[in-house]
Parts: sequence; C-alpha cells; structure tokens
Amino acid sequence: MRTLEWLSETSELKMIDQRALPGELVWLRLSTHDEVISAIKDMTVRGAPAIGAAAAYGLALCAARSHAISSEGLLEELREAAKGLKAARPTAVNLAWAVDRVIAAVKKTAGEGGSVNEATLIEAERIADEDVAINERMAENGAALVQPGETIIHHCNTGALATVDWGTALGVIRKAHEQGKGIRVLVDETRPRLQGARLTAWELKHYGVPFDVISDNAAGSFLQRGEAQRVLVGADRVAANGDTANKIGTYMLALAAKDNDVPFHVVAPLSTIDLNTLTGDSIPIEERSQDEVLGLQVESKPIAPEGTTARNPAFDITPHSLITSIITEKGIAQPPYSQSLRGLKENSR
Amino acid sequence: MRTLEWLSETSELKMIDQRALPGELVWLRLSTHDEVISAIKDMTVRGAPAIGAAAAYGLALCAARSHAISSEGLLEELREAAKGLKAARPTAVNLAWAVDRVIAAVKKTAGEGGSVNEATLIEAERIADEDVAINERMAENGAALVQPGETIIHHCNTGALATVDWGTALGVIRKAHEQGKGIRVLVDETRPRLQGARLTAWELKHYGVPFDVISDNAAGSFLQRGEAQRVLVGADRVAANGDTANKIGTYMLALAAKDNDVPFHVVAPLSTIDLNTLTGDSIPIEERSQDEVLGLQVESKPIAPEGTTARNPAFDITPHSLITSIITEKGIAQPPYSQSLRGLKENSR
Repeated sequence: MRTLEWLSETSELKMIDQRALPGELVWLRLSTHDEVISAIKDMTVRGAPAIGAAAAYGLALCAARSHAISSEGLLEELREAAKGLKAARPTAVNLAWAVDRVIAAVKKTAGEGGSVNEATLIEAERIADEDVAINERMAENGAALVQPGETIIHHCNTGALATVDWGTALGVIRKAHEQGKGIRVLVDETRPRLQGARLTAWELKHYGVPFDVISDNAAGSFLQRGEAQRVLVGADRVAANGDTANKIGTYMLALAAKDNDVPFHVVAPLSTIDLNTLTGDSIPIEERSQDEVLGLQVESKPIAPEGTTARNPAFDITPHSLITSIITEKGIAQPPYSQSLRGLKENSR
Repeated sequence: MRTLEWLSETSELKMIDQRALPGELVWLRLSTHDEVISAIKDMTVRGAPAIGAAAAYGLALCAARSHAISSEGLLEELREAAKGLKAARPTAVNLAWAVDRVIAAVKKTAGEGGSVNEATLIEAERIADEDVAINERMAENGAALVQPGETIIHHCNTGALATVDWGTALGVIRKAHEQGKGIRVLVDETRPRLQGARLTAWELKHYGVPFDVISDNAAGSFLQRGEAQRVLVGADRVAANGDTANKIGTYMLALAAKDNDVPFHVVAPLSTIDLNTLTGDSIPIEERSQDEVLGLQVESKPIAPEGTTARNPAFDITPHSLITSIITEKGIAQPPYSQSLRGLKENSR
C-alpha cells in the first residue's frame, strides 16, 4: 500500500487523508497543485518524506492542468507553483529538496528540447519510487542495531503514512518485528496533534507489533526505570553538524535517553540531511495554530477555560550531542557528524 | 476561598469537584470517610496538601458518624478509617502524614480522657488552617527569587485547588504577580489528566496572571530558545536526599531546565518531605487507569484505534541533582539536600 499514488488515467494524485485516521481510511483525489499546498498546510499529508513526494506530484499536477503553449511558459508556471509548494511548511527540508529536484530535471529536459510535462511526472514518480526503496534500506540498516526483546520508544508518526511506504524510524521497527526480534513499542502519543496515538498506533496494529500508547511526558519515567532499551525517531531536517529538527518533544525525549544511557537514533534519508544548514540554530521552526493545543475534549467538554491562549511550536531542535547515531539508506553516521554526514552525502553523488 | 471547608451545622465536608472544572464550579458535600476515600481515588480532590487535609477531615467525618459508645471503640473505628484513607493513593506522603497526625492527637486526647470526637475535628481543622498559613509563607519565600518580567514554566496544578488555599508552586506565582513583578506563565497542559490546562489555567485566569498553555513536550523548546527563565513545580514526596516524586513529566522538564541552565525549583511544605524515604528509588509510583490516556476526543472522535492499550504512571522521580532549590515554609533548601532538608525539618520541631 502506497500512501501517495499517481492516477494516470485522470492525472490526479491519490492520497490518504491522515486527518480522518484512525477512525476512517479516506482516500482523496487531488487535481491541482493548490490542493496539494492546502493538503500539506492542513496536514492531510504529513511526514517529511511524504510531503516531499506530494509536492513533487503537485508540480506534475500543475503541468497536467497547464494551458501553456510553450515549454518556457510551462516552466514559468512550474516555478510559480514551486514557490507556493515550498512555502507550505518551513521546517522539513525534503519539501524544498523534492521541488528543487523536479525543477532541475525539468529545466534540463526543456534545455534538451524534451517534453516538460512528461519530465515533471517522470521525476515525481522517480522521487516516490526511490523513497520506498530508500526506506527499506534504512529499515534494514536500523533493524541490525535492534536487539531481541527490546522495548523501543517512538515519537510522532514516521511510518508508511509519513513517507510513500515503509517509513523511517517506524520502518526500522516494522523490519525488526518481521525479523522476529520480539520487540515491543512504547508509542509517544505526540501532542498536540497526536500522530502517535492516531497514526503510529494504527500502523502498528496493522503490522501486528505489540505496543502501548503513553503520554509524551511519561517516556522519561520508563527510561528511568529501565523499561525501554532504545529510542527511534525520524527527522524533518538534519543540519551539517547533526543537530536535528523533528516533531516537538523530540529534544526532551533525547535528554531523557541520554540521562539513562539509552541509545537514541535518528532515522532519516539523505534528502533530510541539509549540509547548507550548518547548525540547528538556523532551522526555521514553524509555530502552528493554538487550536491544535486547545481543541481537545474530555467527555465532550473543552480542556481549558474560555479565552485561554496557547503557544504551539511544531518542532524542536535536538542537539547532535544527544544523538547516538543517524541511520540513513547509505549507512549509519556516528559522531562527529560534521564529518560522517558529509562523507555519506558525498559518497551518494 | 477555601477548596475544603467543614460545615459544622451538618458535620459535612464541603469540597470543589475538580473533575468538573474548568466548565463548572461544583461544590460537593461529603458525609462519610468512604466518600472521602472515593473522592481521593477518583481525583475529585487532588494535590498532595489537599488530599492530606481531605483525609484528616475524613477522620472527622468518621468520628461524627460513629455509633461507638466508648473512646476505645471510636479509636478503633478511626484506625480502620485511617488505613483506608492512607491506601487511597500511594505516592503523596501528605496523605499518610495528615492521617497519622490526627490519629496521634486523638490517641493523646483519649489517653487524657478527653473527647475523641472533638479532638479529631480540632486536629483536622488545625491541619487545614496551618496549610493555608504555610502556603503563604512558601509563596513569600519563593516570590523573593522571582525576577521582574520573568516567564515561568509550571507543571500540573499546584494552586489553591491542590491545597486548602494559596497553593505551593502556583502560590509563588500568584504572590510574585501580586507583588507587581510582571511575570508570565507557560502552563504545561499536563497529560494525561490535563490539570494544567483545566485547573491551573482556571486559577491563573481568576488571579489575572498572563499565561499561555503549552503541550508538555514543548517546554524544552521554550527553554532552549531562552523564552523561559524559571521553572516551578510542586511535589508529592521529597526523599531525604532531595529526590522528588511529582506529577509525571516533571523529570523531563527538570532535564530540559538543567540543559539550559534555567533554575528549577520544587515548592513543597515540610510535610511533603519524608526523611524516612532515603532516596527516590523507594517511593512507590502509582500506575493509574489507561482510560486517562486514551479517553480524549478530537472532534468527538477517539484518539487511538480500537483495542489500543496504554501505560499510565502518574508520577516520576526527579533526581536531586536536577533541582536548584527546594522552597519550604521554613526557608529554602540548597544542595546538598541530605543536610539542608534535615536541618529544616529539625528546626521545625
């Protein structure tokens, strides 16, 4: 099952509406790049690799719907669409990476006199196909570290839903489970949007991996009492020095892992590693609507008094010093990351 | 406004139903100690000092409803009630402390031929009155540390609702606000039961203190970005070496404060400091129902797939090494706590 799929008969993008899970599995059909921008903004599609692939398909939709009569005209429309797609969410670097990659491929094709329309779709499909293959390799690389019988803490959702298929950190968990390692997962519910309780629990249930949901703030207690042996998270952007932007709460989880000498791994494809961002300090952190924090109900009643305001940073920065290793499709980077990450990126060219 | 009040005409205990807040302010009247036990278990009343005082009043209800015809008989009934009250929740030491104190006072009175019934109520009222006075002294001691314009992170609810009046950590915040220090509060929502969003926000709104609610897992991000200058929390039990049991999430918050050199203070009366508990390792940690984690709704829909299980430790242990100081009614304890806490306890005898 792919979470993103191109429908060639109608030139539409089919995607799961992640907001409807775990209650319902709803498939949407998107036909314009503006619909993709909205879907990324409102988190119909989320997860760094998934929004990268969705944005690439967004350009394919732009090309498919275009009335431009020249390659130049179409290229101009694609550049406009690219701007909007890249601005949809600021933190994950895969979004810009995927869009830039499609634009570069298309420019090359245009230069060679080829079909820009075709080239857009081909590159988008390539990104999506590669994502699946890359994720499976990361899963293999990471699963080799997992010891039999471990309990693993996992934050947010990093599974098939966050990618085109397989996932990053959750891909490792799925692979270790398939290898018969008898693992168990403590699933951070991941406030405010509860991607852990809603999406990761839904995926793990499908894969048959045993798990319990916990409040994010309880992870430290389990680590402290020796009830978890490993932490696996994904990433929205990894800076050249290994500092990692990921879903809010990752930093506090990493502190708790470090304090208890429990290995803390970031699982991310090379496309998430941004050598142009030198340290975590220069990663932009999105602050989202306070409704995400305040919009819960307990017994149908709101959780805070009327007039309450909230702050809602969507990501935080985990300093590289708290990260045991960074698992990629090309191998596992160890500290010092400024060397190991550059090495992996250069080898992959 | 006292959150617990003895109604002498009917010999009943009046208390706020904390489960109904912030939607409604509901006052309950309890007439038996079994009702008090239930109210403590289901968190109708919560907060270490508040459940201590409620349990003391529980003994007064037992005495008031007793048909015993001798002091001996009544004492026996009180001892039975004391067992049930002490077992209602295991972590907060104030519960056992208050119950033991009433039983000791009553035994003394019985030995001197006085009225056991009267003595029970007198000691319960004394505990409640002292709690208010103690909390105001703690508030003064703590507020002296708060600098003008600070943003303070606060976990759980430690206000009037958690005590008889004023509160512990929130008492400090209220006092600093009344002193015109122009402070602001980041309120940890405090999953799973959301005492921060529900109760602390409700209190702060009444006091006129500016605040924003945040997800617990976002506190680290605010500390990291220099947006908070102090952390204040309460305690359910402080061991002789300063290790502190408090609401789940406190440990991870303390780690984040330490990592950013932000002062982290525990505010607790001497009755919460238990010299008989040598370290945090021997504090029993209550694990509560998984429904507290899974019973949320977003847009009237459950947050996790059907059949999902959860783990729910209600408290964690913050090691003394993460605590900048412990603010009590008799002064502020600094490390090494094994000396400073003993000193404060001995001076108070």
